[in-house]
Amino acid sequence: MNDTPAFELTKEFHELFNQAIETKDVEFIRDSLEGADHADISSLLNEFNPEQSKYVLDLLDTSVGANIIIEMDEDSRGKFLDEFDSAEIAGYVDQLETDDGADILYGLPVKEREQVISAMLNEEKARNIVELLHYDEDVAGGLMAKELIKANLNWTIKQCIEEIRKQAEHVENIYSVYVVNNNDKLLGKVSLKKLIISSDLTKVGDIYDSDIHSVETFTPEDEVAAIMRKYDLDVIPVVNLKGQLMGRITNDDIIDVITELAEEERQLMAGIATDVEEDDSIWKLSRARLPWLMIGLVGGSIAAYFIGFFESEIILIPAMSFFIPLIMATGGNVGIQSSSIIVQSLASRNAFEESMWNRLFKSLLVSIVNGAVLSIAVYFIVFSFDSDSTIAMVVAIALFSVVLLASFMGTITPLILNKFDINPALASGPFITTANDLLGLLVYFGVASALYQF
Amino acid sequence: MNDTPAFELTKEFHELFNQAIETKDVEFIRDSLEGADHADISSLLNEFNPEQSKYVLDLLDTSVGANIIIEMDEDSRGKFLDEFDSAEIAGYVDQLETDDGADILYGLPVKEREQVISAMLNEEKARNIVELLHYDEDVAGGLMAKELIKANLNWTIKQCIEEIRKQAEHVENIYSVYVVNNNDKLLGKVSLKKLIISSDLTKVGDIYDSDIHSVETFTPEDEVAAIMRKYDLDVIPVVNLKGQLMGRITNDDIIDVITELAEEERQLMAGIATDVEEDDSIWKLSRARLPWLMIGLVGGSIAAYFIGFFESEIILIPAMSFFIPLIMATGGNVGIQSSSIIVQSLASRNAFEESMWNRLFKSLLVSIVNGAVLSIAVYFIVFSFDSDSTIAMVVAIALFSVVLLASFMGTITPLILNKFDINPALASGPFITTANDLLGLLVYFGVASALYQF
Repeated sequence: MNDTPAFELTKEFHELFNQAIETKDVEFIRDSLEGADHADISSLLNEFNPEQSKYVLDLLDTSVGANIIIEMDEDSRGKFLDEFDSAEIAGYVDQLETDDGADILYGLPVKEREQVISAMLNEEKARNIVELLHYDEDVAGGLMAKELIKANLNWTIKQCIEEIRKQAEHVENIYSVYVVNNNDKLLGKVSLKKLIISSDLTKVGDIYDSDIHSVETFTPEDEVAAIMRKYDLDVIPVVNLKGQLMGRITNDDIIDVITELAEEERQLMAGIATDVEEDDSIWKLSRARLPWLMIGLVGGSIAAYFIGFFESEIILIPAMSFFIPLIMATGGNVGIQSSSIIVQSLASRNAFEESMWNRLFKSLLVSIVNGAVLSIAVYFIVFSFDSDSTIAMVVAIALFSVVLLASFMGTITPLILNKFDINPALASGPFITTANDLLGLLVYFGVASALYQF
Repeated sequence: MNDTPAFELTKEFHELFNQAIETKDVEFIRDSLEGADHADISSLLNEFNPEQSKYVLDLLDTSVGANIIIEMDEDSRGKFLDEFDSAEIAGYVDQLETDDGADILYGLPVKEREQVISAMLNEEKARNIVELLHYDEDVAGGLMAKELIKANLNWTIKQCIEEIRKQAEHVENIYSVYVVNNNDKLLGKVSLKKLIISSDLTKVGDIYDSDIHSVETFTPEDEVAAIMRKYDLDVIPVVNLKGQLMGRITNDDIIDVITELAEEERQLMAGIATDVEEDDSIWKLSRARLPWLMIGLVGGSIAAYFIGFFESEIILIPAMSFFIPLIMATGGNVGIQSSSIIVQSLASRNAFEESMWNRLFKSLLVSIVNGAVLSIAVYFIVFSFDSDSTIAMVVAIALFSVVLLASFMGTITPLILNKFDINPALASGPFITTANDLLGLLVYFGVASALYQF
């Protein structure tokens, strides 16, 4: 029973382990990693430099090492593998399931990729990995593993169990046995549970379940995730255009897909270049954040330039400048609310697809209600400030218009982005927000010009 | 083979199905739902009112109906179940696994809950569900199902398989057999694969794998999700404080948890009350969005009041008002970037826990770099506007200070929220953004006062 890691990731342990590496205390290293989970060792090695990590890995079994490497995040894995030659990497890939092996090879330069493949000892696995590398990383073909157990329609349960015994060492988790015809076309599955409770001489063809879900090699990863989530699947078979069984995708890969998509969305919303983490270098973190800040700066400068046109009016009625933050903030809030409702609805994909017109119409109604409430509130707030009914009217009308406009932009932008296969969450990010800010100012000063008759 | 739903969720089908319900065309309804997946039928019924849905459900088997009900979102399920009496609901709950049964009961008023439980025919299941209802919905105990296969240490494989045959009809997916001692303490597991490939007389005690992960009944759901994700688990056993096996949590529940947490985070970042969806009523959508907009409005009003103090200065130097949007937008962008890096890092939980001081120090260094770059850029932009070096200096210094301040707030707020067990994503939401806006203005006018010596 191991519900806590074999070691705790504390500063003290880090210190001790570091010392052990420096003094080449093989015994301490082996003892502390004995029985630890691959993922925990991987987190630990993440804190050391590539040479140190290699020293530790060389002390462990190749199969253990392979699983530690696969748990590393892609970034550190790349730097880490630079320490190894092709034959060493091939030794690790030989130990992994095909999808994990392909993940490692994806990260290597093409030339080294070929060297590793030709250095692999398990030729069938090498062939399978080469096949997987043909697919994009973000479609079902790029996620699937070739390891699975399949049975011919005409086999008996006994034959089936013999096949499982034969193949079991290659397949980590079995879940189900897939049933195919003589052309390898996927017909259905038999669950392990059913295999265990059926008698030996039963034909596979008599007990298999033909009512199963599958995806095609080119199905995008987010769609695969949505299907597996909707139907609560642990594993889904992948077929080609002819319906032939090509591989299978398991739930743990899908959890990674969902988590990565959520991270990507968060980064888009926050305006950070993707793939930075808190423990990256200061320079990398700065670079990831500067582009969006510069866009904001340019937006702010345009705003300043624009307000500059109203310099003489502001000297006359300085109160006009007081409400710039209010107008901008409300526009920003409404825009982000509208866009994220749409993003959520696009992500969940389990309702009737609404037409764009229906969505815009509904969003218009919501924003009329909200705009009216806010405008009435702001009218009284401004009027109570300095009992100037004109400025109160300007702010109220401008606010109403900004709410409508921001809501329209927030609704239509993610829909348009989605049509062009761009992540709609970008619409909640700072680029669009900056554009909305400028629109808001335009409306505000436009309304002011009309009411004050500059 | 069923890789597409039995029916497509189109407007045309909706029309036809609606007509069939009105004309009580039982044959059409049964035919179109024949072989369809529960989740698809559930999406379809979502588009009809509760009475219509009940009419359809009454035509189907109770076990099919039970699985359709469990797929509904909690909102519609509540309204839908109002149409049923306790005995009918009990009939459905009798057909479900305990965790799904408990989910349905969670949504009912306490009185009806008791009525349903006492109307259940399967007494063991009723007892198990009552046990599950004692746990909060968001801890391991509230997620787990009681259905699992356990074997005593001293059994043989043959006894184990007999037990599986006996219990198999109650357990949908088996994954592994859990091994316990005479006190029901969890010792380890035997995978189905190992069961199949071992000989009948082997003792369970000789082949079980003691190196397994487990969680405790009170472990929070996000921690369960992180553990299952980190170690790529399909299922995790849940134990009580004495280490006794209480239930198990499967991967599909965890996918729901992860998706819900991502949705919650998106809604917090966007300032929408949780649990609204695009297809909710206009009134519900408005109400979900108004509170945050009102907070923004109050913030904007405070900003206006504050700027009002500088009325005479603005008349003197109107250019000061031009850069309000720039200062505010940059502060907002920096704040959201900093907070979401922290939120991400808190969510991933697979690194050494950094101390708060290290985090603040690193974030300070990043913001000094970014602040310097932005300030230098803005100095030249402003100076090129009207070659007034004082206003250029005011904006540059204020911008630098705002970047540092917003970065500090963005880093510390999610850490503090997290300490108090509040979702740290709230820090990226409009409440904190509003506070940051006000701070930014304070700094801007503060710097202006100092440099212009008002």
